Amino acid sequence: MTTAANTGYEARQLIRARKHTTQTSNLAPGYVQANLAILPSAQAADFLRFCSLNPKPCPLLGSSDAGDWRLPQLGKDIDIRTDLPKYRIWRNGALEREVPDIKDYWRDDLVAFLLGCSFSFEDELLRAGLTLHHHERGCDVPVYRTSIPTTPAGPFAGPLVVSMRSFKPAEAIRAIQITSRMPAVHGAPVHIGLPESIGIADIDKPDYGTAVPMEAGELPVFWACGVTPQAVVEAAGLDFCITHAPAHMLVTDLRNSDFAVL
Amino acid sequence: MTTAANTGYEARQLIRARKHTTQTSNLAPGYVQANLAILPSAQAADFLRFCSLNPKPCPLLGSSDAGDWRLPQLGKDIDIRTDLPKYRIWRNGALEREVPDIKDYWRDDLVAFLLGCSFSFEDELLRAGLTLHHHERGCDVPVYRTSIPTTPAGPFAGPLVVSMRSFKPAEAIRAIQITSRMPAVHGAPVHIGLPESIGIADIDKPDYGTAVPMEAGELPVFWACGVTPQAVVEAAGLDFCITHAPAHMLVTDLRNSDFAVL
Repeated sequence: MTTAANTGYEARQLIRARKHTTQTSNLAPGYVQANLAILPSAQAADFLRFCSLNPKPCPLLGSSDAGDWRLPQLGKDIDIRTDLPKYRIWRNGALEREVPDIKDYWRDDLVAFLLGCSFSFEDELLRAGLTLHHHERGCDVPVYRTSIPTTPAGPFAGPLVVSMRSFKPAEAIRAIQITSRMPAVHGAPVHIGLPESIGIADIDKPDYGTAVPMEAGELPVFWACGVTPQAVVEAAGLDFCITHAPAHMLVTDLRNSDFAVL
Repeated sequence: MTTAANTGYEARQLIRARKHTTQTSNLAPGYVQANLAILPSAQAADFLRFCSLNPKPCPLLGSSDAGDWRLPQLGKDIDIRTDLPKYRIWRNGALEREVPDIKDYWRDDLVAFLLGCSFSFEDELLRAGLTLHHHERGCDVPVYRTSIPTTPAGPFAGPLVVSMRSFKPAEAIRAIQITSRMPAVHGAPVHIGLPESIGIADIDKPDYGTAVPMEAGELPVFWACGVTPQAVVEAAGLDFCITHAPAHMLVTDLRNSDFAVL
């Protein structure tokens, strides 16, 4: 069930009231959406250091005090326990279940981390008149593990994960320019043109998301992806953590255009 | 014979005194060098319009009044008749001769146009730690005619001509970012990765300059080139015109860093 929202605040009110229960893409266009990772405070310092060391896949937009479900720096009256449409509960590194809110799972030692997401730069690419094939097809963007290592911190380590969008070469150059202006939401691409040189053996077989065929005369362009910290947290095998369900994000009060630094 | 120059002014004094008679690359590092086209005033308006319509290959840095050999906007005491080390005299669209100065050819109806050159952005690429293979080899950059048309003006028309430098993909992205900041000296590349899609049949056979082999894992990156207006002027078959000899440029008092708009 989807109802239109004009602002991030309206979107969160709809979600909290269960009037919007599906993925958040195109909900409150122009407003920044964020990936969520909630960890026990015992692991929070290492995770924060991991984000700091790997800013392209893990652009930190905000974090909570331990036990505090509010995030005033990201939006009015946010309750991180209820304001996303779907959450994932993880135990010992394995997915336990998906739930519509996490009130029953909240603990005084939990810290919420919100990370920038590609929806923000896709919004700017579309405004510039570029075409995103996965939007045309109404499917997820293809996402790949690479042979590029992240910089580890404590238990958090693993390969960089990237999303791929293909463009004609002149449009790829324009996409590099546009996303270079947005370092807080993944920024410039990390690679273009030669997937095998970053360990992607078969472009038609993404590790996450959906395969999207490239058209003739296009180049694949690869951006650092928010799946990186999710995969790293999963691999760390923490006793307990919570993430958003894929594409079911926190919609903030920040505007995508605020993240264009130039 | 080459003597070091610390400024554009010193470089021009050396050239005027015939103490520097060879190409100007690496003379007065950091100072903007410019391509020269001198046309009769009867063709000047059309040529100016051609530059205006095609700013990527023809970034106009300055022009003279008809018959005036000075260019105060580009440097102190410039005499465009003597301050380049080598000139080309063209009649009816054909190269007549190369000469060390043009005092004997000057006319009251001649207008000098100075256009930005890739030396400026190459300087910034090198400062950023990127490697230019044609510099390593001490040869000219490879230059190609493309299937991309310029926008014609009067007798001036023809294909876009591009220069090629190859980089590993992450360095290519960095090169796009750096040159995007310098629109007055060709700016961002016009193409990356698929030379056949812009009419370049064989990357090993440039139309001008020297073939420079790409290394494994590199992509070719193509910038609009100052050879474009030279080729267009040649093809227009003007009764008379003068250009710089390739790589024998005007060294100005402007700094390359002045052309970084961000």
